[in-house]
Amino acid sequence: MIDNPALSPAVEARIRESFAAQAMMTSLGARLLEVAHGRVRIEAPILAGSRQQHGFAHAGLAFSIGDSAAGYAALSLMDEAAEVLTVEMKINLLAPASGARLIAAGEVVRPGRRLTVVRAEVTADGTPVALLQGTMIAA
Amino acid sequence: MIDNPALSPAVEARIRESFAAQAMMTSLGARLLEVAHGRVRIEAPILAGSRQQHGFAHAGLAFSIGDSAAGYAALSLMDEAAEVLTVEMKINLLAPASGARLIAAGEVVRPGRRLTVVRAEVTADGTPVALLQGTMIAA
Amino acid sequence: MIDNPALSPAVEARIRESFAAQAMMTSLGARLLEVAHGRVRIEAPILAGSRQQHGFAHAGLAFSIGDSAAGYAALSLMDEAAEVLTVEMKINLLAPASGARLIAAGEVVRPGRRLTVVRAEVTADGTPVALLQGTMIAA
Amino acid sequence: MIDNPALSPAVEARIRESFAAQAMMTSLGARLLEVAHGRVRIEAPILAGSRQQHGFAHAGLAFSIGDSAAGYAALSLMDEAAEVLTVEMKINLLAPASGARLIAAGEVVRPGRRLTVVRAEVTADGTPVALLQGTMIAA
Repeated sequence: MIDNPALSPAVEARIRESFAAQAMMTSLGARLLEVAHGRVRIEAPILAGSRQQHGFAHAGLAFSIGDSAAGYAALSLMDEAAEVLTVEMKINLLAPASGARLIAAGEVVRPGRRLTVVRAEVTADGTPVALLQGTMIAA
Repeated sequence: MIDNPALSPAVEARIRESFAAQAMMTSLGARLLEVAHGRVRIEAPILAGSRQQHGFAHAGLAFSIGDSAAGYAALSLMDEAAEVLTVEMKINLLAPASGARLIAAGEVVRPGRRLTVVRAEVTADGTPVALLQGTMIAA
Repeated sequence: MIDNPALSPAVEARIRESFAAQAMMTSLGARLLEVAHGRVRIEAPILAGSRQQHGFAHAGLAFSIGDSAAGYAALSLMDEAAEVLTVEMKINLLAPASGARLIAAGEVVRPGRRLTVVRAEVTADGTPVALLQGTMIAA
Repeated sequence: MIDNPALSPAVEARIRESFAAQAMMTSLGARLLEVAHGRVRIEAPILAGSRQQHGFAHAGLAFSIGDSAAGYAALSLMDEAAEVLTVEMKINLLAPASGARLIAAGEVVRPGRRLTVVRAEVTADGTPVALLQGTMIAA
């Protein structure tokens, strides 16, 4: 939805540093796959410890990496000094998430000085399993 | 929003068994605080491994226990053979979640044969930090 | 969720004036039932022209008065010069809306200097038909 | 997100008939612009009577045509005898809606036998003003 000029190395470094400081991402085994202008992808294995009662990935895993991917997509367009916080996020579960790993692709729908509208799609081994739409704030 | 007759021991046992099988809850250190008719509370410590980049609880922690509390509240009103799955869930973050532990209180707003509308409030050491509203399905 | 001190006459007048300027509310036959500190109720008849294909009230009617009730509840707690805009709103439909009229009761869940989290319940002749949760911004 | 085979004339007729029976769409001056397999577009003028207090289109207008466009997109993929109802819908407002008319483009994200996940984008004279994501049910 937005043009994709090159991301400045400073912004990319800031996002990678912030991601590394998110202990929750480490606990879930998540890693940054791609950091671009208005677009961030995060990958996480479906660890034994990330499952729900039927053996599928817990909705909380899809939410966590979807929320972080969307948040960093927003941060990639914000002022250098900004931090990003989630205002609200809605997730629709599309299918049970089975397989080896989830990938969340977050993108900016509408950038703003304070509020940014974002979206993320989460796939499990390529199958869409969740769709998120929400709002991030520059804090 | 609904009457609260006593929960049958069979239903309570089914919910406790299902919760114990949710590896994600174990990973997050979560435990069932209360299982009642249309109402379930889950508690989780804010583990070092559940934090975001500023040291607060990750939105994914509040979401995970809020979603599970709401899901089991729905399950408490469903047929004996039913399983419960999240259709969709919306979370509004009210304040940064700091302190020792989160408590999610899930409740049924509108029970249904297939679809159940649910709500959950999450507090951090007593302070409201998140509000969830969503839909569960009997699978 | 919040204390309810008396509303200042200036704030109440501002809300009533703003409501009167919302042509959409007039088109729907809506009127203000109650304006209080952090709480506003709006009533609308289910006009022939507000129905969907099965004769029930269109979801857009429940949304419109729920959104406005929640927005004015937020405005009742904002600075005197503020205007209010909807950032986002989620609606769960609980039952088909039949009968003579809808009432939307909006309330503030979490006030803020810029962002306010709100909620609204809509009933049709006393039966709950919709639940809304969203975010308002002081503009 | 889905293939777009030709829509059967019977399904198209059923959607056009249902739309014509939605009195709310008539009240708003809305009309069907396009009915395709998994995709429906609805247009509405920003009537004087559809405005909010600042003269922009009321959020309820964007919601109403976005919800209907998404609902009929879902119906286009359902069994012949099905009716469609909104389970829940989330709307993010992207910008104030000014100009002559709104267009809502609804599409199916994930079809299902009972539940269908949908999305809609609403533009005002070509500018994106709202994004909707929700769930429809075959009734």
